[in-house]
Amino acid sequence: MSVLPDRRLRIEPIDAEWVQRAARRLDHLTKPLGSLGRLERLAGQLVGMTRQLPPRLSCKVIITMAADHGIAVEGVSAYPQAVTAQMVDNFLRGGAAINVLARHVQARVVIVDMGVVGPVKPHADLVVKRIGPGTRNFAHEPAMTRSEALAAIQAGREVADVELAKGAELIGTGDMGIGNTTASSAMVAAMTGQSVESVTGRGTGINETAHAHKVRVIERALAQHRPNPADPVDVLAKVGGFEIGGLVGVILSTAHAKRPVVLDGFISGAAALIAAGLDPHVTDYLIASHRSQECGHRAMLTHLGLSPVLDLDMRLGEGTGAALAMPILEAAGKLLAEMATFEEAGVSERAR
Amino acid sequence: MSVLPDRRLRIEPIDAEWVQRAARRLDHLTKPLGSLGRLERLAGQLVGMTRQLPPRLSCKVIITMAADHGIAVEGVSAYPQAVTAQMVDNFLRGGAAINVLARHVQARVVIVDMGVVGPVKPHADLVVKRIGPGTRNFAHEPAMTRSEALAAIQAGREVADVELAKGAELIGTGDMGIGNTTASSAMVAAMTGQSVESVTGRGTGINETAHAHKVRVIERALAQHRPNPADPVDVLAKVGGFEIGGLVGVILSTAHAKRPVVLDGFISGAAALIAAGLDPHVTDYLIASHRSQECGHRAMLTHLGLSPVLDLDMRLGEGTGAALAMPILEAAGKLLAEMATFEEAGVSERAR
Repeated sequence: MSVLPDRRLRIEPIDAEWVQRAARRLDHLTKPLGSLGRLERLAGQLVGMTRQLPPRLSCKVIITMAADHGIAVEGVSAYPQAVTAQMVDNFLRGGAAINVLARHVQARVVIVDMGVVGPVKPHADLVVKRIGPGTRNFAHEPAMTRSEALAAIQAGREVADVELAKGAELIGTGDMGIGNTTASSAMVAAMTGQSVESVTGRGTGINETAHAHKVRVIERALAQHRPNPADPVDVLAKVGGFEIGGLVGVILSTAHAKRPVVLDGFISGAAALIAAGLDPHVTDYLIASHRSQECGHRAMLTHLGLSPVLDLDMRLGEGTGAALAMPILEAAGKLLAEMATFEEAGVSERAR
Repeated sequence: MSVLPDRRLRIEPIDAEWVQRAARRLDHLTKPLGSLGRLERLAGQLVGMTRQLPPRLSCKVIITMAADHGIAVEGVSAYPQAVTAQMVDNFLRGGAAINVLARHVQARVVIVDMGVVGPVKPHADLVVKRIGPGTRNFAHEPAMTRSEALAAIQAGREVADVELAKGAELIGTGDMGIGNTTASSAMVAAMTGQSVESVTGRGTGINETAHAHKVRVIERALAQHRPNPADPVDVLAKVGGFEIGGLVGVILSTAHAKRPVVLDGFISGAAALIAAGLDPHVTDYLIASHRSQECGHRAMLTHLGLSPVLDLDMRLGEGTGAALAMPILEAAGKLLAEMATFEEAGVSERAR
């Protein structure tokens, strides 16, 4: 049963009839049955999501949401909080990894300020949806109120709806926020019941002492706030982040529009846990771009029933994994569109 | 010590100084240290191979070599031998998976007839380097003579040399040949000492009975011909294939030219075992594009010390895996070229 904040936002399940249609076409193409492996399964999923054969995927957008985290003052990150705003500037000037990779795969990047602390220089391309000047420190109090959490989700939906209206066919998620692996580890522990230790990694690269401290900070916060996994908005509010809430909205709107969501790594996975908790049909529209080096990502993917397309030992965020997976998804779609059948090509079928 | 057929073809090892130069640049770019994982290691390798920072990789060519195999009459494939020639026609008309994927990644495909049995229609784009009308049936006699094996390697070198002279910067390998997983399984067993059973898979999709037969055919052939792993040309001659010999030449010339070789799957791996047997420095220039579903591929990659970039459960050949990996390699190169440093972007470095 859906516990969506907005009852009109019903997510339709993937269309099994369209998946079958894709499978039938794949079996007539000039290649041994099933020999394109994961590409064939992706092709089927993309057809089933979009109800298009071939699926249209060329208009690609990566929505990268940034916000700050009150928990950063606890010394859980290797970088100072000012880096969030500095990296937003870097995104807008085109010098970050996500810019390079998005240009490479011909995706547009949409940068959203969901609540960055530091001064962010105004920029024509920056989408401003600030919920507040960073979350509160969840070591002491809930990161945000329930209405702030709902506002973040709503803001994310608005951003995605604008892109979908402009014609986005494949939407990737991305994040920036010093402290957001701490929030995401707390969220995955709360949503899956896994131990904090097993889902808490080194983030941007903290040492062993800082890591032990990060685990303790999260354990105490969860014991104090008792976020309720049956109420995903409660989890988001108590230990989440504004950019994570925004990504929940992006995922919900994209799935509602029957378009594929290309999840980046650990932070996007935390948003996906919330979105799937709100409506389980959301997972039908999710493609896990890669397996993050961040250890808690595995528990997320298992919980969501997703298998990553890439495994490149990355842990950067920003949408970099989503960007790299996009050409593979497009390739799966193009095989359906452009390969000859045995009959068309005059190629003999199986002898035995 | 090199046992290369041509003593002038010396392969220089990768340049460790250039690898270091790439690593230093990567550490100044606006991202947590090492957070791009495998992409950073690939970037270092590509710089070390090419002695270019950033490495130039945009001119991409996939060389797909086709030939027939006498062993096919033993009933080791699910498809009739005529399919080799029919698929060459399909390649030349642009309807095969490799055409779709190569167009997608903006690589040119070069189709080479190394010795196809069936009538191949003349075509302006077909490179003809026929060593003979398919190999002989190695269930009864060596697949080819030593001089045919050397001629196949030489032909492959000529094809690659032409492409390199035209400006190819990134060369992928591909294959087509009914029966060629049987030859490749025999080659990997001979070169690595692994049991035939452990390195023999289902190829294009044979059933259990045909698979057991395939294993027995290979075991008997190896017992009869005793290919010598210390003499890789002997292994190629006794149980190899003309297209595999051609790919050995492509690998040798590309490595000699200090350009990266993007290996496709199982058949390309067999060629790489021979090339690396001829000169161990060859492996410095090899990038394994993907892990094939064909079970013997793992033993090859272990023997060559390679870790695949993708793992998509594919087993098609043609160069399809090589094509899919190319955008990831280019991405690694572009990060070096286009990302801002911490200094340029005004982003704070690590706090702790």
